[in-house]
Amino acid sequence: MNRTDLFKLIQKKKSFLCIGLDSDLNKIPKHLQYTEDPVFEFNKQIIDATIQYAVAYKPNLAFYESRGIKGMVSLEKTMNYLENFSNEVFTIADAKRGDIGNTSTQYAVSVFDKQASGFSFDAITVAPYMGEDSVKPFLAFTGKWAIVLALTSNKGSDDFQLFSDVNETRLFERVLERTSKWGTPDNMMFVVGATKAEMLEGIRNIVPDHFLLVPGVGAQGGDLNAVAKYGLNDHCGLLVNASRSILFASNGSDFAKKAALEALSLQQEMEAILLKNNLI
Amino acid sequence: MNRTDLFKLIQKKKSFLCIGLDSDLNKIPKHLQYTEDPVFEFNKQIIDATIQYAVAYKPNLAFYESRGIKGMVSLEKTMNYLENFSNEVFTIADAKRGDIGNTSTQYAVSVFDKQASGFSFDAITVAPYMGEDSVKPFLAFTGKWAIVLALTSNKGSDDFQLFSDVNETRLFERVLERTSKWGTPDNMMFVVGATKAEMLEGIRNIVPDHFLLVPGVGAQGGDLNAVAKYGLNDHCGLLVNASRSILFASNGSDFAKKAALEALSLQQEMEAILLKNNLI
Repeated sequence: MNRTDLFKLIQKKKSFLCIGLDSDLNKIPKHLQYTEDPVFEFNKQIIDATIQYAVAYKPNLAFYESRGIKGMVSLEKTMNYLENFSNEVFTIADAKRGDIGNTSTQYAVSVFDKQASGFSFDAITVAPYMGEDSVKPFLAFTGKWAIVLALTSNKGSDDFQLFSDVNETRLFERVLERTSKWGTPDNMMFVVGATKAEMLEGIRNIVPDHFLLVPGVGAQGGDLNAVAKYGLNDHCGLLVNASRSILFASNGSDFAKKAALEALSLQQEMEAILLKNNLI
Repeated sequence: MNRTDLFKLIQKKKSFLCIGLDSDLNKIPKHLQYTEDPVFEFNKQIIDATIQYAVAYKPNLAFYESRGIKGMVSLEKTMNYLENFSNEVFTIADAKRGDIGNTSTQYAVSVFDKQASGFSFDAITVAPYMGEDSVKPFLAFTGKWAIVLALTSNKGSDDFQLFSDVNETRLFERVLERTSKWGTPDNMMFVVGATKAEMLEGIRNIVPDHFLLVPGVGAQGGDLNAVAKYGLNDHCGLLVNASRSILFASNGSDFAKKAALEALSLQQEMEAILLKNNLI
Protein backbone atom coordinates (compact mmCIF):
# COMPACT_ATOMS: atom_id res chain seq x y z
CA MET A 1 0.00 0.00 0.00
CA ASN A 2 1.53 3.34 -1.04
CA ARG A 3 1.06 6.74 0.60
CA THR A 4 -1.74 7.82 -1.72
CA ASP A 5 -3.65 4.59 -1.06
CA LEU A 6 -3.17 5.02 2.67
CA PHE A 7 -4.55 8.57 2.53
CA LYS A 8 -7.52 7.34 0.47
CA LEU A 9 -8.18 4.68 3.10
CA ILE A 10 -8.06 7.32 5.83
CA GLN A 11 -10.54 9.44 3.87
CA LYS A 12 -12.83 6.48 3.27
CA LYS A 13 -12.88 5.35 6.90
CA LYS A 14 -12.72 8.92 8.25
CA SER A 15 -10.15 7.62 10.67
CA PHE A 16 -6.39 7.49 11.21
CA LEU A 17 -6.66 4.98 14.02
CA CYS A 18 -4.15 2.16 14.38
CA ILE A 19 -5.02 -0.59 16.84
CA GLY A 20 -2.08 -2.21 18.59
CA LEU A 21 -2.61 -5.95 19.00
CA ASP A 22 -0.62 -6.30 22.25
CA SER A 23 -2.68 -9.40 22.93
CA ASP A 24 -1.42 -10.58 26.30
CA LEU A 25 -2.69 -14.12 26.98
CA ASN A 26 -2.93 -13.28 30.69
CA LYS A 27 -5.23 -10.32 30.09
CA ILE A 28 -7.73 -11.67 27.59
CA PRO A 29 -11.19 -12.62 28.84
CA LYS A 30 -11.50 -15.86 30.76
CA HIS A 31 -14.22 -17.35 28.56
CA LEU A 32 -11.77 -17.36 25.62
CA GLN A 33 -9.11 -19.29 27.52
CA TYR A 34 -10.91 -22.53 26.73
CA THR A 35 -10.88 -22.08 22.95
CA GLU A 36 -8.27 -23.80 20.78
CA ASP A 37 -6.20 -20.64 20.24
CA PRO A 38 -7.37 -17.96 22.72
CA VAL A 39 -5.12 -15.20 21.37
CA PHE A 40 -6.24 -15.70 17.77
CA GLU A 41 -9.89 -15.90 18.84
CA PHE A 42 -9.44 -12.66 20.80
CA ASN A 43 -7.73 -10.91 17.86
CA LYS A 44 -10.35 -12.10 15.39
CA GLN A 45 -13.19 -10.74 17.51
CA ILE A 46 -11.33 -7.47 18.12
CA ILE A 47 -10.70 -7.10 14.37
CA ASP A 48 -14.30 -7.88 13.45
CA ALA A 49 -15.56 -5.39 16.03
CA THR A 50 -13.20 -2.53 15.10
CA ILE A 51 -12.30 -2.85 11.42
CA GLN A 52 -14.75 -0.17 10.29
CA TYR A 53 -13.08 2.33 12.66
CA ALA A 54 -9.39 1.47 12.15
CA VAL A 55 -7.11 1.93 9.13
CA ALA A 56 -4.21 -0.06 10.60
CA TYR A 57 -3.44 -2.96 12.94
CA LYS A 58 -0.12 -3.27 14.70
CA PRO A 59 0.64 -6.62 16.33
CA ASN A 60 3.35 -6.16 18.95
CA LEU A 61 5.61 -9.12 18.22
CA ALA A 62 6.87 -9.38 21.80
CA PHE A 63 3.45 -10.57 22.98
CA TYR A 64 3.55 -13.45 20.47
CA GLU A 65 7.25 -14.35 20.82
CA SER A 66 6.84 -14.63 24.60
CA ARG A 67 4.66 -17.70 23.96
CA GLY A 68 7.27 -19.25 21.66
CA ILE A 69 6.13 -21.22 18.64
CA LYS A 70 2.51 -21.31 19.86
CA GLY A 71 2.53 -17.52 19.88
CA MET A 72 3.90 -17.36 16.35
CA VAL A 73 1.07 -19.65 15.24
CA SER A 74 -1.45 -17.23 16.79
CA LEU A 75 0.26 -14.35 14.95
CA GLU A 76 0.29 -16.19 11.63
CA LYS A 77 -3.43 -16.96 11.93
CA THR A 78 -4.14 -13.33 12.84
CA MET A 79 -2.24 -12.03 9.81
CA ASN A 80 -3.92 -14.55 7.51
CA TYR A 81 -7.26 -13.40 8.87
CA LEU A 82 -6.37 -9.76 8.20
CA GLU A 83 -5.64 -10.68 4.56
CA ASN A 84 -9.41 -10.95 4.12
CA PHE A 85 -9.41 -7.16 4.48
CA SER A 86 -6.21 -6.47 2.54
CA ASN A 87 -7.37 -3.34 0.71
CA GLU A 88 -9.02 -1.94 3.81
CA VAL A 89 -6.19 -2.19 6.26
CA PHE A 90 -2.50 -1.36 6.68
CA THR A 91 -0.49 -3.80 8.81
CA ILE A 92 2.53 -3.02 10.97
CA ALA A 93 4.89 -5.51 12.61
CA ASP A 94 5.84 -3.70 15.80
CA ALA A 95 9.22 -5.35 16.21
CA LYS A 96 11.82 -2.56 16.75
CA ARG A 97 14.38 -4.49 14.70
CA GLY A 98 17.77 -3.33 13.40
CA ASP A 99 21.16 -5.01 12.93
CA ILE A 100 24.09 -5.10 10.49
CA GLY A 101 23.05 -5.19 6.83
CA ASN A 102 22.86 -8.93 6.10
CA THR A 103 20.96 -9.47 9.36
CA SER A 104 18.50 -6.63 8.78
CA THR A 105 17.78 -8.22 5.40
CA GLN A 106 16.82 -11.42 7.22
CA TYR A 107 14.56 -9.46 9.58
CA ALA A 108 12.93 -7.82 6.55
CA VAL A 109 12.30 -11.25 5.02
CA SER A 110 10.79 -12.39 8.34
CA VAL A 111 8.00 -9.79 8.10
CA PHE A 112 7.72 -8.99 4.37
CA ASP A 113 8.37 -12.19 2.39
CA LYS A 114 5.37 -14.46 2.81
CA GLN A 115 6.87 -17.30 0.81
CA ALA A 116 9.91 -17.49 3.10
CA SER A 117 8.42 -16.68 6.49
CA GLY A 118 4.63 -16.89 6.22
CA PHE A 119 4.29 -13.16 6.93
CA SER A 120 3.53 -10.24 4.65
CA PHE A 121 3.14 -7.11 6.76
CA ASP A 122 3.01 -3.71 5.07
CA ALA A 123 5.49 -2.18 7.51
CA ILE A 124 7.90 -2.84 10.36
CA THR A 125 9.14 -0.62 13.19
CA VAL A 126 12.94 -0.20 13.12
CA ALA A 127 15.45 0.95 15.78
CA PRO A 128 18.01 3.36 14.27
CA TYR A 129 20.94 2.95 16.70
CA MET A 130 23.12 0.96 14.25
CA GLY A 131 22.74 3.47 11.41
CA GLU A 132 22.35 3.43 7.65
CA ASP A 133 23.21 -0.17 6.77
CA SER A 134 20.85 -1.37 9.52
CA VAL A 135 17.87 0.60 8.16
CA LYS A 136 18.26 0.46 4.37
CA PRO A 137 17.61 -3.29 3.93
CA PHE A 138 14.02 -2.72 5.07
CA LEU A 139 13.58 -0.18 2.25
CA ALA A 140 14.62 -2.64 -0.45
CA PHE A 141 11.20 -4.33 -0.53
CA THR A 142 8.83 -2.68 -3.04
CA GLY A 143 5.60 -1.45 -1.50
CA LYS A 144 6.84 -2.05 2.06
CA TRP A 145 7.63 0.50 4.76
CA ALA A 146 10.20 1.03 7.51
CA ILE A 147 8.89 2.98 10.50
CA VAL A 148 11.95 4.35 12.30
CA LEU A 149 11.97 5.18 16.01
CA ALA A 150 12.54 8.90 16.49
CA LEU A 151 11.04 10.19 19.75
CA THR A 152 9.26 7.50 21.73
CA SER A 153 6.46 7.82 24.28
CA ASN A 154 8.15 6.23 27.28
CA LYS A 155 9.99 7.83 30.19
CA GLY A 156 13.35 6.37 29.12
CA SER A 157 13.16 8.28 25.84
CA ASP A 158 14.91 11.12 27.71
CA ASP A 159 18.03 9.04 28.33
CA PHE A 160 19.44 9.10 24.82
CA GLN A 161 16.92 10.57 22.37
CA LEU A 162 17.31 14.05 23.90
CA PHE A 163 21.13 13.86 23.99
CA SER A 164 22.19 17.00 22.12
CA ASP A 165 25.25 18.19 20.23
CA VAL A 166 27.08 21.52 20.32
CA ASN A 167 24.43 23.08 18.03
CA GLU A 168 21.63 21.85 20.30
CA THR A 169 20.51 19.29 17.74
CA ARG A 170 19.09 16.40 19.72
CA LEU A 171 19.66 12.77 18.77
CA PHE A 172 16.05 12.22 17.64
CA GLU A 173 16.40 15.25 15.34
CA ARG A 174 19.65 13.86 13.94
CA VAL A 175 17.83 10.54 13.38
CA LEU A 176 15.03 12.34 11.49
CA GLU A 177 17.47 14.38 9.40
CA ARG A 178 19.70 11.46 8.42
CA THR A 179 17.30 8.56 8.05
CA SER A 180 14.77 10.62 6.04
CA LYS A 181 17.44 10.86 3.33
CA TRP A 182 17.73 7.04 3.11
CA GLY A 183 14.15 6.58 1.96
CA THR A 184 11.17 8.64 0.83
CA PRO A 185 7.82 9.62 2.34
CA ASP A 186 6.50 6.65 0.33
CA ASN A 187 8.50 3.97 2.14
CA MET A 188 9.43 5.49 5.49
CA MET A 189 7.53 6.73 8.53
CA PHE A 190 8.68 7.77 11.99
CA VAL A 191 7.55 6.89 15.50
CA VAL A 192 6.78 9.97 17.60
CA GLY A 193 5.11 9.49 20.98
CA ALA A 194 1.84 11.29 21.70
CA THR A 195 3.18 12.12 25.16
CA LYS A 196 5.57 14.55 23.40
CA ALA A 197 2.91 16.26 21.27
CA GLU A 198 4.35 19.74 21.79
CA MET A 199 7.52 18.59 20.04
CA LEU A 200 5.65 17.62 16.87
CA GLU A 201 5.89 21.18 15.55
CA GLY A 202 9.68 21.00 15.34
CA ILE A 203 9.52 17.48 13.97
CA ARG A 204 7.19 18.61 11.16
CA ASN A 205 9.83 21.18 10.15
CA ILE A 206 12.29 18.33 9.54
CA VAL A 207 9.90 15.79 7.98
CA PRO A 208 6.91 17.72 6.61
CA ASP A 209 5.72 14.97 4.27
CA HIS A 210 6.25 11.72 6.15
CA PHE A 211 3.60 9.78 7.99
CA LEU A 212 4.16 9.62 11.74
CA LEU A 213 3.12 6.62 13.80
CA VAL A 214 2.01 8.03 17.13
CA PRO A 215 1.65 5.66 20.09
CA GLY A 216 0.76 6.81 23.57
CA VAL A 217 -2.87 7.90 23.17
CA GLY A 218 -5.02 6.01 25.67
CA ALA A 219 -3.28 4.05 28.44
CA GLN A 220 -0.13 6.18 28.16
CA GLY A 221 -2.05 9.47 28.47
CA GLY A 222 -1.34 11.31 25.18
CA ASP A 223 -3.76 13.94 23.84
CA LEU A 224 -5.23 13.36 20.37
CA ASN A 225 -6.11 17.00 19.67
CA ALA A 226 -2.61 18.19 20.52
CA VAL A 227 -1.13 15.49 18.27
CA ALA A 228 -3.41 16.58 15.40
CA LYS A 229 -2.74 20.30 15.93
CA TYR A 230 0.99 19.91 15.35
CA GLY A 231 1.20 16.66 13.40
CA LEU A 232 -1.30 16.76 10.52
CA ASN A 233 -0.11 17.34 6.96
CA ASP A 234 -1.84 17.41 3.55
CA HIS A 235 -2.01 13.58 3.43
CA CYS A 236 -3.16 13.44 7.06
CA GLY A 237 0.33 12.16 7.85
CA LEU A 238 -0.67 10.54 11.12
CA LEU A 239 -1.44 7.04 12.28
CA VAL A 240 -2.42 7.28 15.92
CA ASN A 241 -2.16 4.06 17.86
CA ALA A 242 -4.15 2.85 20.84
CA SER A 243 -3.66 -0.63 22.28
CA ARG A 244 -4.61 -1.44 25.86
CA SER A 245 -7.43 1.13 26.11
CA ILE A 246 -9.25 -0.66 23.26
CA LEU A 247 -8.20 -4.31 23.73
CA PHE A 248 -8.91 -4.42 27.44
CA ALA A 249 -11.85 -1.98 27.66
CA SER A 250 -13.66 -4.88 29.29
CA ASN A 251 -12.44 -8.27 30.43
CA GLY A 252 -15.88 -9.83 30.26
CA SER A 253 -17.86 -11.46 27.49
CA ASP A 254 -18.68 -7.97 26.15
CA PHE A 255 -14.99 -7.21 25.45
CA ALA A 256 -15.44 -6.90 21.66
CA LYS A 257 -18.43 -4.59 22.01
CA LYS A 258 -16.58 -2.38 24.51
CA ALA A 259 -13.52 -2.37 22.24
CA ALA A 260 -15.73 -1.25 19.35
CA LEU A 261 -17.12 1.60 21.47
CA GLU A 262 -13.62 2.76 22.38
CA ALA A 263 -12.52 2.58 18.74
CA LEU A 264 -15.68 4.35 17.59
CA SER A 265 -15.09 7.13 20.10
CA LEU A 266 -11.56 7.69 18.76
CA GLN A 267 -12.78 7.45 15.15
CA GLN A 268 -15.39 10.12 15.83
CA GLU A 269 -12.78 12.44 17.31
CA MET A 270 -10.61 11.78 14.27
CA GLU A 271 -13.46 12.41 11.85
CA ALA A 272 -14.06 15.79 13.48
CA ILE A 273 -10.36 16.60 13.20
CA LEU A 274 -10.19 15.55 9.52
CA LEU A 275 -13.31 17.63 8.73
CA LYS A 276 -12.02 20.69 10.54
CA ASN A 277 -8.78 20.48 8.59
CA ASN A 278 -10.49 19.98 5.20
CA LEU A 279 -8.93 16.55 4.74
CA ILE A 280 -12.28 14.87 4.04
CA MET B 1 25.78 -18.60 34.69
CA ASN B 2 27.39 -15.78 36.70
CA ARG B 3 30.58 -13.85 35.91
CA THR B 4 32.81 -16.03 38.05
CA ASP B 5 31.48 -19.19 36.38
CA LEU B 6 32.00 -17.64 32.96
CA PHE B 7 35.61 -16.79 33.79
CA LYS B 8 36.16 -20.33 35.10
CA LEU B 9 34.77 -21.69 31.83
CA ILE B 10 37.14 -19.45 29.87
CA GLN B 11 40.06 -20.72 31.96
CA LYS B 12 38.98 -24.33 31.53
CA LYS B 13 38.59 -24.12 27.76
CA LYS B 14 41.48 -21.65 27.36
CA SER B 15 39.23 -19.74 25.02
CA PHE B 16 36.96 -16.71 24.95
CA LEU B 17 35.47 -17.62 21.60
CA CYS B 18 31.78 -17.11 20.87
CA ILE B 19 30.42 -18.73 17.72
CA GLY B 20 27.61 -16.89 16.01
CA LEU B 21 25.02 -19.29 14.64
CA ASP B 22 23.97 -17.12 11.67
CA SER B 23 22.83 -20.31 10.00
CA ASP B 24 21.55 -19.14 6.62
CA LEU B 25 19.60 -21.96 4.94
CA ASN B 26 20.87 -20.76 1.55
CA LYS B 27 24.51 -21.07 2.58
CA ILE B 28 24.62 -24.43 4.33
CA PRO B 29 26.09 -27.39 2.44
CA LYS B 30 23.95 -28.99 -0.26
CA HIS B 31 24.11 -32.50 1.17
CA LEU B 32 22.29 -31.30 4.29
CA GLN B 33 19.41 -29.79 2.33
CA TYR B 34 17.81 -33.21 2.06
CA THR B 35 17.68 -33.87 5.80
CA GLU B 36 14.48 -33.30 7.79
CA ASP B 37 15.70 -30.04 9.35
CA PRO B 38 18.82 -28.86 7.49
CA VAL B 39 19.50 -25.86 9.75
CA PHE B 40 19.31 -27.91 12.95
CA GLU B 41 21.47 -30.66 11.40
CA PHE B 42 24.01 -28.01 10.38
CA ASN B 43 24.01 -26.40 13.85
CA LYS B 44 24.31 -29.75 15.59
CA GLN B 45 27.34 -30.72 13.55
CA ILE B 46 28.91 -27.27 14.00
CA ILE B 47 28.36 -27.48 17.77
CA ASP B 48 29.78 -31.01 18.02
CA ALA B 49 32.83 -29.98 16.01
CA THR B 50 33.56 -26.75 17.89
CA ILE B 51 32.32 -27.13 21.46
CA GLN B 52 35.75 -27.82 22.90
CA TYR B 53 37.03 -24.52 21.45
CA ALA B 54 34.10 -22.22 22.19
CA VAL B 55 32.70 -20.89 25.48
CA ALA B 56 29.59 -19.35 23.95
CA TYR B 57 27.12 -19.76 21.09
CA LYS B 58 25.11 -16.88 19.75
CA PRO B 59 22.22 -17.75 17.44
CA ASN B 60 21.29 -14.71 15.37
CA LEU B 61 17.50 -14.76 15.64
CA ALA B 62 16.98 -13.02 12.28
CA PHE B 63 18.23 -16.11 10.42
CA TYR B 64 15.58 -18.24 12.14
CA GLU B 65 12.70 -15.75 12.05
CA SER B 66 13.20 -15.29 8.30
CA ARG B 67 11.97 -18.87 7.88
CA GLY B 68 8.91 -18.25 10.05
CA ILE B 69 7.65 -21.00 12.31
CA LYS B 70 9.90 -23.61 10.65
CA GLY B 71 12.89 -21.48 11.58
CA MET B 72 11.76 -21.18 15.18
CA VAL B 73 11.50 -24.97 15.33
CA SER B 74 15.12 -25.23 14.12
CA LEU B 75 16.15 -22.72 16.80
CA GLU B 76 14.27 -24.55 19.54
CA LYS B 77 15.90 -27.85 18.58
CA THR B 78 19.31 -26.16 18.54
CA MET B 79 18.84 -24.68 22.01
CA ASN B 80 17.55 -27.98 23.38
CA TYR B 81 20.64 -29.66 21.94
CA LEU B 82 22.90 -27.08 23.60
CA GLU B 83 21.28 -27.91 26.95
CA ASN B 84 23.26 -31.16 26.85
CA PHE B 85 26.30 -28.95 27.43
CA SER B 86 24.70 -26.52 29.89
CA ASN B 87 27.65 -26.14 32.24
CA GLU B 88 30.13 -25.89 29.39
CA VAL B 89 28.55 -23.18 27.35
CA PHE B 90 27.05 -19.69 27.61
CA THR B 91 24.18 -18.93 25.22
CA ILE B 92 23.26 -15.57 23.72
CA ALA B 93 20.08 -14.69 21.82
CA ASP B 94 21.35 -12.14 19.32
CA ALA B 95 18.09 -10.27 18.95
CA LYS B 96 18.80 -6.53 19.46
CA ARG B 97 15.48 -6.08 21.26
CA GLY B 98 14.21 -3.06 23.21
CA ASP B 99 10.79 -1.44 23.67
CA ILE B 100 8.67 0.22 26.38
CA GLY B 101 8.75 -1.57 29.73
CA ASN B 102 5.82 -3.98 29.50
CA THR B 103 6.93 -4.98 25.98
CA SER B 104 10.58 -5.49 26.94
CA THR B 105 9.33 -7.77 29.71
CA GLN B 106 7.60 -9.88 27.06
CA TYR B 107 10.80 -9.99 24.98
CA ALA B 108 12.69 -11.10 28.09
CA VAL B 109 10.16 -13.90 28.63
CA SER B 110 10.59 -14.91 24.98
CA VAL B 111 14.27 -15.74 25.50
CA PHE B 112 14.61 -16.43 29.24
CA ASP B 113 11.43 -18.19 30.44
CA LYS B 114 11.48 -21.72 29.10
CA GLN B 115 8.08 -22.62 30.50
CA ALA B 116 6.41 -19.76 28.65
CA SER B 117 8.36 -19.64 25.40
CA GLY B 118 10.42 -22.83 25.13
CA PHE B 119 13.68 -20.84 25.32
CA SER B 120 16.16 -20.39 28.13
CA PHE B 121 19.14 -18.42 26.82
CA ASP B 122 21.68 -17.03 29.29
CA ALA B 123 21.73 -13.62 27.62
CA ILE B 124 20.12 -11.37 25.02
CA THR B 125 21.49 -8.44 23.01
CA VAL B 126 19.55 -5.23 23.66
CA ALA B 127 19.29 -1.94 21.71
CA PRO B 128 19.47 1.06 24.08
CA TYR B 129 17.69 3.75 22.00
CA MET B 130 14.51 3.76 24.15
CA GLY B 131 16.38 4.16 27.45
CA GLU B 132 16.11 2.90 31.00
CA ASP B 133 12.64 1.35 31.06
CA SER B 134 13.44 -0.52 27.83
CA VAL B 135 16.62 -2.11 29.25
CA LYS B 136 15.80 -2.81 32.89
CA PRO B 137 13.16 -5.52 32.31
CA PHE B 138 15.90 -7.77 30.90
CA LEU B 139 17.82 -7.39 34.18
CA ALA B 140 14.92 -8.61 36.31
CA PHE B 141 15.62 -12.29 35.53
CA THR B 142 18.01 -13.85 38.05
CA GLY B 143 21.12 -15.34 36.48
CA LYS B 144 20.35 -13.82 33.06
CA TRP B 145 22.23 -11.10 31.19
CA ALA B 146 21.46 -8.09 29.02
CA ILE B 147 24.15 -7.30 26.44
CA VAL B 148 23.63 -3.68 25.45
CA LEU B 149 24.74 -2.27 22.09
CA ALA B 150 27.41 0.38 22.62
CA LEU B 151 29.74 0.72 19.62
CA THR B 152 28.91 -1.71 16.83
CA SER B 153 31.16 -3.12 14.11
CA ASN B 154 29.27 -1.93 11.04
CA LYS B 155 29.80 1.14 8.87
CA GLY B 156 26.51 2.72 9.95
CA SER B 157 27.71 2.82 13.58
CA ASP B 158 29.16 6.27 12.69
CA ASP B 159 25.73 7.72 11.98
CA PHE B 160 24.47 8.01 15.54
CA GLN B 161 26.84 6.23 17.94
CA LEU B 162 29.55 8.87 17.38
CA PHE B 163 27.13 11.80 17.72
CA SER B 164 28.74 13.94 20.44
CA ASP B 165 27.63 16.56 22.93
CA VAL B 166 29.18 19.90 23.89
CA ASN B 167 31.70 18.09 26.15
CA GLU B 168 32.70 15.75 23.31
CA THR B 169 31.01 12.80 25.00
CA ARG B 170 29.82 10.54 22.21
CA LEU B 171 26.49 8.73 22.28
CA PHE B 172 28.08 5.29 22.77
CA GLU B 173 29.97 6.69 25.79
CA ARG B 174 26.76 8.13 27.19
CA VAL B 175 25.15 4.71 26.69
CA LEU B 176 28.01 3.04 28.59
CA GLU B 177 27.90 5.59 31.41
CA ARG B 178 24.13 5.47 31.92
CA THR B 179 23.25 1.86 31.25
CA SER B 180 26.12 0.51 33.36
CA LYS B 181 24.37 2.10 36.37
CA TRP B 182 21.16 0.15 35.69
CA GLY B 183 22.80 -3.25 36.22
CA THR B 184 26.06 -4.73 37.43
CA PRO B 185 29.04 -6.46 35.81
CA ASP B 186 27.22 -9.66 36.83
CA ASN B 187 24.13 -9.13 34.69
CA MET B 188 25.19 -6.72 31.96
CA MET B 189 27.68 -6.77 29.11
CA PHE B 190 28.26 -4.42 26.17
CA VAL B 191 28.67 -4.94 22.44
CA VAL B 192 31.84 -3.32 21.09
CA GLY B 193 32.87 -4.07 17.52
CA ALA B 194 36.35 -5.48 16.85
CA THR B 195 36.63 -3.09 13.91
CA LYS B 196 36.89 -0.29 16.50
CA ALA B 197 39.58 -1.96 18.64
CA GLU B 198 41.55 1.26 19.17
CA MET B 199 38.52 2.69 20.96
CA LEU B 200 38.48 -0.11 23.54
CA GLU B 201 40.98 1.74 25.73
CA GLY B 202 38.55 4.59 26.36
CA ILE B 203 35.70 2.14 26.79
CA ARG B 204 37.62 0.26 29.47
CA ASN B 205 37.95 3.53 31.41
CA ILE B 206 34.15 3.74 31.60
CA VAL B 207 33.37 0.04 32.17
CA PRO B 208 36.52 -1.59 33.60
CA ASP B 209 34.77 -4.66 35.00
CA HIS B 210 32.10 -5.59 32.46
CA PHE B 211 32.38 -8.31 29.88
CA LEU B 212 32.40 -7.02 26.30
CA LEU B 213 30.89 -9.02 23.46
CA VAL B 214 33.09 -8.28 20.46
CA PRO B 215 31.81 -9.16 17.00
CA GLY B 216 33.68 -8.37 13.83
CA VAL B 217 36.66 -10.74 14.02
CA GLY B 218 36.74 -12.89 10.89
CA ALA B 219 34.51 -11.93 7.96
CA GLN B 220 34.27 -8.31 9.15
CA GLY B 221 38.06 -7.92 9.44
CA GLY B 222 38.68 -7.13 13.13
CA ASP B 223 42.06 -7.91 14.76
CA LEU B 224 42.04 -10.25 17.77
CA ASN B 225 45.36 -9.09 19.22
CA ALA B 226 44.32 -5.44 19.13
CA VAL B 227 41.03 -6.34 20.82
CA ALA B 228 42.88 -8.24 23.57
CA LYS B 229 45.48 -5.50 24.05
CA TYR B 230 42.87 -2.90 24.97
CA GLY B 231 39.95 -5.04 26.08
CA LEU B 232 41.16 -7.67 28.57
CA ASN B 233 40.48 -7.27 32.28
CA ASP B 234 41.13 -9.46 35.34
CA HIS B 235 38.17 -11.75 34.50
CA CYS B 236 39.22 -11.86 30.83
CA GLY B 237 36.20 -9.60 30.19
CA LEU B 238 35.94 -10.50 26.51
CA LEU B 239 33.76 -12.77 24.44
CA VAL B 240 35.01 -12.52 20.87
CA ASN B 241 32.52 -13.62 18.26
CA ALA B 242 33.13 -15.14 14.84
CA SER B 243 30.27 -16.33 12.67
CA ARG B 244 30.63 -16.66 8.91
CA SER B 245 34.39 -17.40 8.96
CA ILE B 246 33.69 -20.54 11.01
CA LEU B 247 30.25 -21.63 9.79
CA PHE B 248 31.04 -21.34 6.12
CA ALA B 249 34.76 -22.26 6.14
CA SER B 250 33.74 -24.93 3.62
CA ASN B 251 30.46 -25.56 1.84
CA GLY B 252 31.27 -29.20 1.18
CA SER B 253 30.81 -32.36 3.20
CA ASP B 254 33.91 -31.39 5.23
CA PHE B 255 32.21 -28.23 6.58
CA ALA B 256 32.26 -29.33 10.22
CA LYS B 257 35.92 -30.33 10.08
CA LYS B 258 36.86 -27.01 8.45
CA ALA B 259 34.77 -25.14 11.02
CA ALA B 260 36.61 -26.98 13.80
CA LEU B 261 39.97 -25.97 12.30
CA GLU B 262 38.91 -22.31 12.15
CA ALA B 263 37.66 -22.45 15.74
CA LEU B 264 40.82 -24.25 16.88
CA SER B 265 42.96 -21.60 15.24
CA LEU B 266 41.14 -18.82 17.10
CA GLN B 267 41.22 -20.82 20.35
CA GLN B 268 45.01 -21.23 20.04
CA GLU B 269 45.46 -17.49 19.51
CA MET B 270 43.24 -16.89 22.55
CA GLU B 271 45.15 -19.40 24.69
CA ALA B 272 48.39 -17.60 23.88
CA ILE B 273 46.79 -14.27 24.80
CA LEU B 274 45.40 -15.63 28.09
CA LEU B 275 48.79 -17.15 28.99
CA LYS B 276 50.68 -13.97 28.16
CA ASN B 277 48.34 -12.00 30.40
CA ASN B 278 48.54 -14.48 33.31
CA LEU B 279 44.83 -15.26 33.10
CA ILE B 280 45.44 -19.02 32.93
